[in-house]
Amino acid sequence: MTDRIFTAGLVVIGDEILSGRTHDKNIAQVASWLQVQGIRLAEVRVVPDVIERIVEAVNALREANDYLFTTGGIGPTHDDITVDAVAEALGVEVIIHPQARATLERYYADKGGLNEGRLRMARVPDGAELIPNRMSGAPGIRIGNIHLMAGVPHITAGMLDALTGSLEGGAPLISETVGGFIPESEVSTLLREAELAHENCQIGSYPFFREGKVGSNFVVRSTDRADLDACMKDLCDGLTEAGFEFTHGGI
Amino acid sequence: MTDRIFTAGLVVIGDEILSGRTHDKNIAQVASWLQVQGIRLAEVRVVPDVIERIVEAVNALREANDYLFTTGGIGPTHDDITVDAVAEALGVEVIIHPQARATLERYYADKGGLNEGRLRMARVPDGAELIPNRMSGAPGIRIGNIHLMAGVPHITAGMLDALTGSLEGGAPLISETVGGFIPESEVSTLLREAELAHENCQIGSYPFFREGKVGSNFVVRSTDRADLDACMKDLCDGLTEAGFEFTHGGI
Repeated sequence: MTDRIFTAGLVVIGDEILSGRTHDKNIAQVASWLQVQGIRLAEVRVVPDVIERIVEAVNALREANDYLFTTGGIGPTHDDITVDAVAEALGVEVIIHPQARATLERYYADKGGLNEGRLRMARVPDGAELIPNRMSGAPGIRIGNIHLMAGVPHITAGMLDALTGSLEGGAPLISETVGGFIPESEVSTLLREAELAHENCQIGSYPFFREGKVGSNFVVRSTDRADLDACMKDLCDGLTEAGFEFTHGGI
Repeated sequence: MTDRIFTAGLVVIGDEILSGRTHDKNIAQVASWLQVQGIRLAEVRVVPDVIERIVEAVNALREANDYLFTTGGIGPTHDDITVDAVAEALGVEVIIHPQARATLERYYADKGGLNEGRLRMARVPDGAELIPNRMSGAPGIRIGNIHLMAGVPHITAGMLDALTGSLEGGAPLISETVGGFIPESEVSTLLREAELAHENCQIGSYPFFREGKVGSNFVVRSTDRADLDACMKDLCDGLTEAGFEFTHGGI
């Protein structure tokens, strides 16, 4: 644990997200996992299956952050070009990783064996290590500060699980939520003042419409428990004074 | 209709997405709507509630694309800074839009009237027009090629509906899908060859695990109906030759 803030970028790769065909689930999944590691997700870019566009995003976010994650484009088909793009970004060759090849040979032994497409999943940028994949044969890939994960969310979940605790992070961001049928536009001054009074805290306001009524959840975030509690107390006192009912944990 | 390809960028603004607290629904919604307008979503960036980061993303994507959309950060609270960021990106002042103020005065007439927070929602970059919002009082904002939309998905849906047909687009991208319990790793050569044989077509391969079995949906995309049909025929003939069963429309 240090006071330093660790950040990560995420590049989501795939025409299927940009066409609206597939609803991304990896942004929220990677973001939540990073929080627990004490790492903040600083930016996400969603880019198409085009080498130059992936290279550009990878280079921008790997240099600006402590860690970079990618999701998508590491499968067996012609549109899976993430390994090629990351190798190009780093200026290294693409090689067949012997351990990945052995894993795939075992996995496909009773499924028709390795073929050209399946062997693609053993390709890595030269110098990479593998990230275990307990769900299917093809591993994730780690090279430098870059982590290449699957596009299928539950496979990425397994890879994240394998990485848990292996990355250096700072103090995790903690948060508390209160919510109620409170129009955020009636308490905007209170929110701003409570945030200003506690410099280690941020307050987010998230409106919703439910049961025909408007309401909001207010999330106070900090890396310090005492600061968080003091800010939350000011916020709750202010909401009570204004005559609002609210629920801890949000609604 | 022209042969030119029109593209759009999307900047999703909000700490709540980067923390994993809120699952984004606007990327898929904006992407699908753009397809129907004949406009391709070329890149998405998700950035935090920090002026400099929003300015940087807005400038990068508005210059690289025909259109830019933003979602989030146009509400009444202190963390709603999208208008300020876009004004800074364009080098213009922030003003109170008289029509937006009048709309908000009417909307809040029986809800306690305008206050400082609510009046924030009438702020626009100087020179902007309003995008109607039928769901709640605060309008969307259009300035140059930039469209500022709400963060709450159903409000954004109403704003997109108000914009339907008002943006120049090219020929819409059309697509056809076939799917089955077909491991994509067994047909990767077929997919690559079918795509190569039809230069106006792209084939995406989207694996899934369902009912304990692996399968894939294959999506052929083109702006030309005849090219699309020819490519889909080659793909289906190849799948049949290889002994696979599949369903048109995908599974």
